[in-house]
Amino acid sequence: MKRKESDHAVGRGLRYSTVPESEYEKYAIRHETDTLIYALGGLGEVGKNMYCYEHNDEIVIVDCGVLFPDAELMGVDYVIPDFTYLQKNQAKIKALIITHGHEDHIGSIPFLLQYVHLKEIYAPRFAKALIEKKLEEHRLSRSVKIIEINSDSRVTTNYFNIGFFNTVHSIPDSLGVLINTPNGRIIETGDFRFDLTPIGTNSDYQKMAYMGQVGITLLMSDSTNSQVPGFSISEKKVASAILEQIRKTPGRLLVSTFASNVLRLNQILEAAVACDRKVAVFGRSMENVVEIGRKLGIVKIPDSSFISGNEMNTLPANKICIVCTGSQGEPMAALSRIANGTHKFLKIIPGDTVLFSSNPIPGNGVSVSAVVNQLTRVGANVVVNSPLTSFHTTGHAPQEEQKLMLNLVKPKYFMPMHGEYKMLVTHASTAQETGVKKDNCFICSNGDIIVMRDEECFIANERIEVDSIYVDGNDASGLSTSVIKDRQILANNGLVAVIVSIDSRYNKILCRPSIVSRGFIHIKESQTTIKEAELVVYEALKKKMQQRTTFGELKNCIRSSLEPFLFQKTNRNPIVIPVILNQKVAMEELQQKSSK
Amino acid sequence: MKRKESDHAVGRGLRYSTVPESEYEKYAIRHETDTLIYALGGLGEVGKNMYCYEHNDEIVIVDCGVLFPDAELMGVDYVIPDFTYLQKNQAKIKALIITHGHEDHIGSIPFLLQYVHLKEIYAPRFAKALIEKKLEEHRLSRSVKIIEINSDSRVTTNYFNIGFFNTVHSIPDSLGVLINTPNGRIIETGDFRFDLTPIGTNSDYQKMAYMGQVGITLLMSDSTNSQVPGFSISEKKVASAILEQIRKTPGRLLVSTFASNVLRLNQILEAAVACDRKVAVFGRSMENVVEIGRKLGIVKIPDSSFISGNEMNTLPANKICIVCTGSQGEPMAALSRIANGTHKFLKIIPGDTVLFSSNPIPGNGVSVSAVVNQLTRVGANVVVNSPLTSFHTTGHAPQEEQKLMLNLVKPKYFMPMHGEYKMLVTHASTAQETGVKKDNCFICSNGDIIVMRDEECFIANERIEVDSIYVDGNDASGLSTSVIKDRQILANNGLVAVIVSIDSRYNKILCRPSIVSRGFIHIKESQTTIKEAELVVYEALKKKMQQRTTFGELKNCIRSSLEPFLFQKTNRNPIVIPVILNQKVAMEELQQKSSK
Repeated sequence: MKRKESDHAVGRGLRYSTVPESEYEKYAIRHETDTLIYALGGLGEVGKNMYCYEHNDEIVIVDCGVLFPDAELMGVDYVIPDFTYLQKNQAKIKALIITHGHEDHIGSIPFLLQYVHLKEIYAPRFAKALIEKKLEEHRLSRSVKIIEINSDSRVTTNYFNIGFFNTVHSIPDSLGVLINTPNGRIIETGDFRFDLTPIGTNSDYQKMAYMGQVGITLLMSDSTNSQVPGFSISEKKVASAILEQIRKTPGRLLVSTFASNVLRLNQILEAAVACDRKVAVFGRSMENVVEIGRKLGIVKIPDSSFISGNEMNTLPANKICIVCTGSQGEPMAALSRIANGTHKFLKIIPGDTVLFSSNPIPGNGVSVSAVVNQLTRVGANVVVNSPLTSFHTTGHAPQEEQKLMLNLVKPKYFMPMHGEYKMLVTHASTAQETGVKKDNCFICSNGDIIVMRDEECFIANERIEVDSIYVDGNDASGLSTSVIKDRQILANNGLVAVIVSIDSRYNKILCRPSIVSRGFIHIKESQTTIKEAELVVYEALKKKMQQRTTFGELKNCIRSSLEPFLFQKTNRNPIVIPVILNQKVAMEELQQKSSK
Repeated sequence: MKRKESDHAVGRGLRYSTVPESEYEKYAIRHETDTLIYALGGLGEVGKNMYCYEHNDEIVIVDCGVLFPDAELMGVDYVIPDFTYLQKNQAKIKALIITHGHEDHIGSIPFLLQYVHLKEIYAPRFAKALIEKKLEEHRLSRSVKIIEINSDSRVTTNYFNIGFFNTVHSIPDSLGVLINTPNGRIIETGDFRFDLTPIGTNSDYQKMAYMGQVGITLLMSDSTNSQVPGFSISEKKVASAILEQIRKTPGRLLVSTFASNVLRLNQILEAAVACDRKVAVFGRSMENVVEIGRKLGIVKIPDSSFISGNEMNTLPANKICIVCTGSQGEPMAALSRIANGTHKFLKIIPGDTVLFSSNPIPGNGVSVSAVVNQLTRVGANVVVNSPLTSFHTTGHAPQEEQKLMLNLVKPKYFMPMHGEYKMLVTHASTAQETGVKKDNCFICSNGDIIVMRDEECFIANERIEVDSIYVDGNDASGLSTSVIKDRQILANNGLVAVIVSIDSRYNKILCRPSIVSRGFIHIKESQTTIKEAELVVYEALKKKMQQRTTFGELKNCIRSSLEPFLFQKTNRNPIVIPVILNQKVAMEELQQKSSK
């Protein structure tokens, strides 16, 4: 569809704000020969990454993630990309490529499979194992084949020739993607940082530099940490800080970290074993990852070092290290249950030390704080990460590492991806500092289309309409915005249902309105208010029903009489649900029933 | 009431965990001669500060604040202390003393006045002005007299002789309190920090040191920053960083900060005027505070430097400085409305600079981030505080300043106050580092009673039962926990109302059950589910009504048939509201009406 005026107002396609509408045609797509780049998720947000590359009758998708909603999205478990465009262009989809196994890159795969038929998913080793586990849980294992890729792999279609390069990230087997198209070369970094002394596979500096030498038309790069100056801390430094902490901990030790960071996890386990402790693993995702990590040879400590929950009681406290989920204060995770005394095996005993090898993700600060308070309350010594302690490091490149990527790859055009709007903007300035031209930087929104034609790029004069789909439970059909809005009003103001029965034949009220409320005001304290409200509605309805009327009008009459009254009395605006029962039907039914 | 077993389990009154129950009597209160110290709010939380001092038939209260709830408390505007104990002991209350004018110290006054008759409130100058404004808004101005106090004031009752000392905090006119009792001397610091080059009144080092010399039995000290090492940054340094930023800003400048920090505000205004800018003030609380600040002579820039919203258009961009509310991302505050384009006077124009002279309070990170994104999106250059920039400093003493207070006052006993549990614990260790004995540190919960007897302190074997009261709107009657719980379920799962009309005379269903839902699933997508659900309930009810039954049983029958069905179909557990209309009444009413 046409780019709308409103797009400019919100700052989308800023490049167009100076272009007179008469010149829009210049920016039209030539569908047969242009290469199109667009995101269905990941721009203007941290999460649900999904980037698409389209040429003629082919679409290649990179990543398919979820976004974890903030508290405002009531009861929503995930937010997923809008697959409408892919559904319509089902026949064009040639491949889904996964860069690494984090939820914001693989989490929407089970939902995508409910909309679109995919023959193959290409994923690196560790991501493959996680996706297989996920599909098993969704009973979707048979619906798609997962092909393992590594930095030497090639994925080829008619128009695309796709290669990979190793990056460092907070999960093993993380890849960047090189996409050769008929109109130029594209690099999508995936999530990355540089670590000059990494644990696990190193970044492939040579390949990146070679690609820079050959010439890259467009770089799309991870913007998560674009507002953080400097370099990140090496994982080696974190490992030695953790070893030091374990060494000096006198009693029992609990460590919580991100389950997917299995290289960190292995460092923790090895440090524990080095300090003569046995390890117990708690929390479903942690247990899964340890199992996969051991299968893939990433977790290397011997079988004899693992103990079960029951075996813990046979060991002295200073011989035990417990690794568990819950570093983000998730209320159902192992650590929260341990803190609250509701875990099946484990209770804090005074003298326990709890180490957080993690930082709170923005938005989780309050829940992490609550768990720390509760752990302290029951007698644990809680050690959290701080700039002074180095018990955690980020998986995303800060500014100097983003500059290193830009210097190695030397792109002609640049699109910051994977980040909130402010992060994209800052990343674009960083790119300009390294020499990318200002006009060659694209701050895009999901659905914006970058057109690549003969190694030149511009933003198209049309875009793909994309929305966010809210998932509650595992139902991919999603919740609409109206359901979410209703929940917000319910949450803030509660609900008042008004039930009235009338007989439309006589235009008479049979039953005076009766009011039922939930989450509104405490019933006992408010019986007078409710009684008065019923009377207000009754009077309004009586007046209304003196002339002919419709059900819709009666419902409006209930709302318009009740809402101002309740607001005036309580200063609240609950949802009002008018329920009108027409007893004409009822009595006929009664007669019917009686005659049976 | 007696101290319960469960109190120990959660770590309250830890000193008792080692005391055999037979020795509890040792810790009984001698009500005629002991001095009692307890909090009705402020311990284990940051907010609703309210500390009480009781001797025989006298109670003196210090502070009466609100707590701003986190997102889990749906639609709750404030949490206030539980006034039940004060209501019961109404006759004992001799005075309410206010240490300073922040909401977490004065915000519950209008609610307290609905429960308890107070003759006088003692408050320092700036707090007095804010309380007067607040009482005016609640139409309570006539119900209490506010007496201005300063560091030279005395408040005396039969048993208490109360003095004050100046502290530095992020609001003018902040006082610490010295309470002389028949059993010893108590210092309550209020909120404080030390600033060796403050703006405004300095801390009274001499008085604090003198009190330390004379001998303090119990110190109660602000714990907000007890987990932050080192010293805080001086307000002078912040002032010069802001001046520098204003000087180098090319276009229009917007600055947002905490309204109550009127000394900061004055620095911003003076810097703007020094850079030849006129100032406009937006946001109700900011306008209030500027008005009060000018009246009290704290805001000193001339009348001619202020401009209204309309006058802004007549000036070039680089002659304008706008000061506004919204530094915490509050959705209704001026800055959010400006960012969203819904403010009546102001829209961001590209080239505007927005300076945040603030940090996000824990829990507000996501909303602040949203405002920064939106400001960036519409073209503003956003400058936030960071450790490198010093555009903001805290109002609470970090560890080294807490130690300075402890060194000046040299208390025999110590109770950390005003903070979450983990903060209280850390503050107690800090106190021990300065020489307070471990056994003389009390980590208390709201309602715990410290007994002071002949300059000795212990925790009593009984406590005051206190709860948190949730306020939605301005109704002090509060919301019960059940309303909050309902709202949480409504928010996460929505609601399903089942309406059925029966005739209890014939034990017949007149109208088949009909279902109305809100915030549950999208109606269009779920019509089959709803139809099926109606049938399930209908069948269950028919079966149930074959024998004699009650309304309660019918309601249970609706719930027990519907809930498992809906969960199986949708994986959700909405609130089910059964509504049963008995048409016996209806038809009698009809006959009545017809005969009229």
